[in-house]
Amino acid sequence: MLIVGELINTSRQSVRKMVETKNKDGIVDLALTQEQTGVDYLDINCGTFMEKEPEVMEWLVKTVREVCDIPLCIDSPSYEVLKIGLDNCSSKSMINSTTFETERFNKVAPLAAEFGAKLIALCIDDNGMPNSSEDRVRIANEMITRLNNFGLYNDDIYIDPLIKPISAGINNGIEVLHAIPEIIKENPGIHFICGLTNISFNLPARKVINKTFMIQTMTMGMDSYIIDLTNKEVAGALLASNMLLGKDKYCKGYIKAYRNGIYG
Amino acid sequence: MLIVGELINTSRQSVRKMVETKNKDGIVDLALTQEQTGVDYLDINCGTFMEKEPEVMEWLVKTVREVCDIPLCIDSPSYEVLKIGLDNCSSKSMINSTTFETERFNKVAPLAAEFGAKLIALCIDDNGMPNSSEDRVRIANEMITRLNNFGLYNDDIYIDPLIKPISAGINNGIEVLHAIPEIIKENPGIHFICGLTNISFNLPARKVINKTFMIQTMTMGMDSYIIDLTNKEVAGALLASNMLLGKDKYCKGYIKAYRNGIYG
Repeated sequence: MLIVGELINTSRQSVRKMVETKNKDGIVDLALTQEQTGVDYLDINCGTFMEKEPEVMEWLVKTVREVCDIPLCIDSPSYEVLKIGLDNCSSKSMINSTTFETERFNKVAPLAAEFGAKLIALCIDDNGMPNSSEDRVRIANEMITRLNNFGLYNDDIYIDPLIKPISAGINNGIEVLHAIPEIIKENPGIHFICGLTNISFNLPARKVINKTFMIQTMTMGMDSYIIDLTNKEVAGALLASNMLLGKDKYCKGYIKAYRNGIYG
Repeated sequence: MLIVGELINTSRQSVRKMVETKNKDGIVDLALTQEQTGVDYLDINCGTFMEKEPEVMEWLVKTVREVCDIPLCIDSPSYEVLKIGLDNCSSKSMINSTTFETERFNKVAPLAAEFGAKLIALCIDDNGMPNSSEDRVRIANEMITRLNNFGLYNDDIYIDPLIKPISAGINNGIEVLHAIPEIIKENPGIHFICGLTNISFNLPARKVINKTFMIQTMTMGMDSYIIDLTNKEVAGALLASNMLLGKDKYCKGYIKAYRNGIYG
């Protein structure tokens, strides 16, 4: 299981302000708080700054790097911003993300290979978003083969099966759930990752839906999430799910996290 | 999906007192409150009364039947008590439960056939409790065949795969999760049911574990639970899970339950 902490994202009003006021302490606090909950990577996203994105990315990465060695997940639609982020990281980074759209893929895949970075690969190709489970399996299989050809091992590839809102289609949950084991069957050792907010778009009590879909996808084989692990309900569900899937010997992780107040 | 409300059970101190003081209003209130949350059946269990169990079962069933028509799930280890319960029901009842142990099975299976009742069938045979997923599949397949021979249709059979505590074995979750689709493959139209408290025995924050295992088993095909649907967290998780599995057109059930304050 690999968890990416989602909180350093300038689409959050509080983080935007920290950047605008050059509030290093605020960013550092977000990094350390997340590190303490046991996340493996910290997502860094400043896409809302548009043309200033490159300099903000550099400042954020450097600010976090000054206080902790936790690996970073550089999150941007821009190749240039990804490169600036990676240039300023020391440990093994993660790239968020490429798609299988020709132009983007042909720039970002070599970047991942060059930096030895883990790569989040989203199931979108030149035909657009997938509609079915079969679409996802086809795009993922082709994309993984191409990534292998670029020198990336399955262990560094994190497939995002593309989560659409359940409010937009009754099958938008199960098309993802069915795709996961099919992709695993063809690609042993591959990983899966997603954020969870899309699934609940336009519905009430979104956190209930997000948490439920996390458990469902995990049951089918997803093993990474971009989430807020400082949220005790999310943390409890994740730890319980991991334990019930046979991945927590003697329930040690679950019990220790409870004692440390991570959930409950 | 079929939900059995678990609250009328004399192992709960408050219910025990209601029975001892012949407090009809208390029992009626429990029945109506559960009915309002949308449960399909009400479990009736008075096993703690030992030798008085038959008369208490009769009183409980009659008390509930006076105020609502919701079908009842007669819950007892005793054949005689099951029969008394069924004799006093009008609508289609449910029997909780038989095992595949010869003596019990040969008494309870014909009882289900005689009353046209739904039957909860627990994966235990004369060799005792199952250890693996394969044990569960074997016992279930044999038991379903025998039940079919007694005249029961798969649609009236609810397999309980036997939930053991995760604290007692790291694979006690996945052995159940893996068994469910295997049993479905061999027995189209079969149902699954369980209570959730066993899984979390001896661990902290048990409700987190129970709710997570509910979502996991449901993802694998379980479609019935004996639960407390007046608990908003349980209700929210159940409704979200059902919706995400493609069983709630236009998210109507989820949205309506939210408006009615069932969760959230």
